[in-house]
Amino acid sequence: MSKYWSEITKKIEPYVPGEQPKDRKYIKLNTNENPYPPSPKVIEAINKEATDCLQLYPEPNCDDLRATVAKYYNLSPNQIFVGNGSDEVLAFSFMTFFNKEKPVLFADITYSFYEVYVQLFELNHKLIPLKDDFSLPVEDFITDNAGIVIANPNAPTSKPVEIDDLKRILEINKNTVVIVDEAYVDFGGTSVINLIDSYPNLLVVQTLSKSRSLAGLRVGFAFGHADLIDGLNRVKNSFNSYTIDRLAAVGAKAAFEDVEYFDTMCNKVIRTRERILPELEKLGFTVLESKTNFFFVSHKEMPAEEIFKELRANGILVRFFNKPKINNFLRISIGTDKEMDTLVETLKKIINK
Amino acid sequence: MSKYWSEITKKIEPYVPGEQPKDRKYIKLNTNENPYPPSPKVIEAINKEATDCLQLYPEPNCDDLRATVAKYYNLSPNQIFVGNGSDEVLAFSFMTFFNKEKPVLFADITYSFYEVYVQLFELNHKLIPLKDDFSLPVEDFITDNAGIVIANPNAPTSKPVEIDDLKRILEINKNTVVIVDEAYVDFGGTSVINLIDSYPNLLVVQTLSKSRSLAGLRVGFAFGHADLIDGLNRVKNSFNSYTIDRLAAVGAKAAFEDVEYFDTMCNKVIRTRERILPELEKLGFTVLESKTNFFFVSHKEMPAEEIFKELRANGILVRFFNKPKINNFLRISIGTDKEMDTLVETLKKIINK
Repeated sequence: MSKYWSEITKKIEPYVPGEQPKDRKYIKLNTNENPYPPSPKVIEAINKEATDCLQLYPEPNCDDLRATVAKYYNLSPNQIFVGNGSDEVLAFSFMTFFNKEKPVLFADITYSFYEVYVQLFELNHKLIPLKDDFSLPVEDFITDNAGIVIANPNAPTSKPVEIDDLKRILEINKNTVVIVDEAYVDFGGTSVINLIDSYPNLLVVQTLSKSRSLAGLRVGFAFGHADLIDGLNRVKNSFNSYTIDRLAAVGAKAAFEDVEYFDTMCNKVIRTRERILPELEKLGFTVLESKTNFFFVSHKEMPAEEIFKELRANGILVRFFNKPKINNFLRISIGTDKEMDTLVETLKKIINK
Repeated sequence: MSKYWSEITKKIEPYVPGEQPKDRKYIKLNTNENPYPPSPKVIEAINKEATDCLQLYPEPNCDDLRATVAKYYNLSPNQIFVGNGSDEVLAFSFMTFFNKEKPVLFADITYSFYEVYVQLFELNHKLIPLKDDFSLPVEDFITDNAGIVIANPNAPTSKPVEIDDLKRILEINKNTVVIVDEAYVDFGGTSVINLIDSYPNLLVVQTLSKSRSLAGLRVGFAFGHADLIDGLNRVKNSFNSYTIDRLAAVGAKAAFEDVEYFDTMCNKVIRTRERILPELEKLGFTVLESKTNFFFVSHKEMPAEEIFKELRANGILVRFFNKPKINNFLRISIGTDKEMDTLVETLKKIINK
C-alpha cells in the first residue's frame, strides 16, 4: 500500500493467472493452453512482417485482420472488434456497456476476472448461483440489471449453456448488453455469433489463445451489432490507439486463413478429451460434461487439494480453486496424448497408494 | 450513439492518431515514426521466438525484459513496469495514481491524449497555459492537485524542460505523483530516470516507438519507486494479465541489448535534424528548439494549414493541429536525409510560388 495509490488501486484485488513456475519442468495442465503449436503459416507471416516495417505504427483498427475474420464468419468488418486478448476485450466491454447504478449479472461460478472488472470500474454486480449440477438458472436472469456476462462453455466447469437459454436471456434483457464469452467454444460448443444480426444487445467474445494455439500472441475479438463495436472503438481509442502490434495482427490473420489446420488441431484435442474421460471415471472421478479443452473433475474419495499437491510434486500442474462450491474440484487442461497418459498413470499411483 | 453505451462512452472524445492513408504512397512525416528499421537483432529474436512456443502464455510481468532494461539503466527490476506502448502505460498511470476530487495538472499545449484519459477516467483537470515561448511556467504548478503530467521534451512543441524546473515541481508536490513523459528524450533530451531514487513521487514514462524504431511492436515503460510500480501492476493485473505478447517482449529485450545500433541511429536522426533546421529557417520558418525527432515550425507569411494542404497534395504528410495557440504551426517528423531534402525542395516550391 502506498499513499500515492488512487482509492481504487488500494481497493482492487487483481486477477491471479495460473502459475508459470520456473523451478523445474512441469507438464502444464493448469492454464488451458493448447498443447500444439499454431499453424506454420502463422509463423511464416510473422517472420515476413518482422523484417518489413516494425518502425511504423500498426493499423489502429486492424482493417486487414478484420476483413479476413469477417469473411471467415460471414460478417461485415464493422461487426468485429479486435483486442489484446479476450481479457482486454472484456475490460473494454465492461467500460463501454455497463453503467454504475444497476448490478451486472454473472454466475457465482464462472471466469473469475469478471468480478475483478466490476471492482476496477466501480460497478455493482449480483452473482447468480448456478444450480447444483452447475447449469445456468435462466429464470434468475430475469431481474433489473446493467448488463449480463455468460461464459459458454462455462469456465472452470467446462459445461455448455443451452442456446435456447441464451436466446431467452437475450430476449428478456432487450435494454442491456448480454456478453457471451466463448473463449472455449471451438472445442465442441455452439457459438451464437450467427445471432448477432437478430439481437442488437448481443456481444460475443472470443480469443485466439486456446483453439488457435496463440496464447503467446494476445489477440481476442468481440462480435456484435455495428453500434456496439463502434462503442468499443470509442473506449479503446480513448485508452490506447494501437493495442495490437504488427506481428500479432498478421499472425492472427494467418491463423484464420489456415482453416484446415485449425479444424485438425481442434479435433485432435477433442479426441484426446473423449479418450481420457472414461479413464478418469475409472479412477473414481466425477467428470463434468466438457465442450472445452479442459476437464472439471472431483474425486469420490480423495480431496481435490490433496490430488493437486500430489500431482505438483510429481511434476504435473493442474488448477485448484480454493473457493466455496468448487474447492473439491480440479480443472485439468487437455494436453498431448502422451501428457494425458502420464497424467492418468500418475493419478493411478496417487489414488491407489 | 447507441442506447447500449455507458454514460462515459457517450461522453468521451477519443484520441485521433495521425492519419495513415492508403490512397497513395506518401512521405510520412506526420506520426513521429523513426525512418530507420530496428536493430537486426530485434528481428532475429522475434523470428526465433515465433517458432518456439506461441501456444504458451507470455510471462505476465515480462521478467526477462525487465532484467535487461534494469541492467541498461542501472535500476532494480521492481522499479520497472512494462506496458503495451507508452499510451497504455499512461492510461494505467492515470487510473493508478490520480483521484477524482482535485485536478490533474498538465500544460495547455502538450500530448493531447492526457485530456482524453481525464475524460475516460472521469477525473478533474486544470490546464496550465505555457508561456508565449512555449516554456513551462513552473510557478503555476504550485497549486493543490491530484497529480501532474509533463512531457519532456514537450510534444508537439519539441521543446525540452529544464531539469531544475522538474526538480522544483517534484519538491513542491511531494504528496502527488508527477509523471514525466519522456517519449522523445533519446534525441538529445535529458532523462530524469536517475532521479527516481530521490523522488518517490516521480514516474518516468518511455516508449520504444520512437528512438528504438518499434512503433509497430507496442512496448512502453514506466520507471519509478517500487511502490509506484507495484500499484501499476495491481491495476494492469485487474485489466489484462498479459498485455505484452511473446514477440514484443523478446524484440524489446534485443533492442535494449544492441546499444551500439541504438546510439548510431539516434545520432543519425539528430544529425539530419541539425542539418535541416537552418534550411527551414532560410525558407522563412521559425523553428522551435528541438530535442526530439520532429520540428515544430511556423512560417512568417504562409498560414500553417495552407502549407499542410499543399504538402499533402505533393505527397508529404505532416501534422497540423487545429487548436488555439498552435493553429499556425506544423509538426514535422524527421525522416531520412533523402525525405527531408524532398521536404525542403517541396517547401521551396510551395512558399515561392
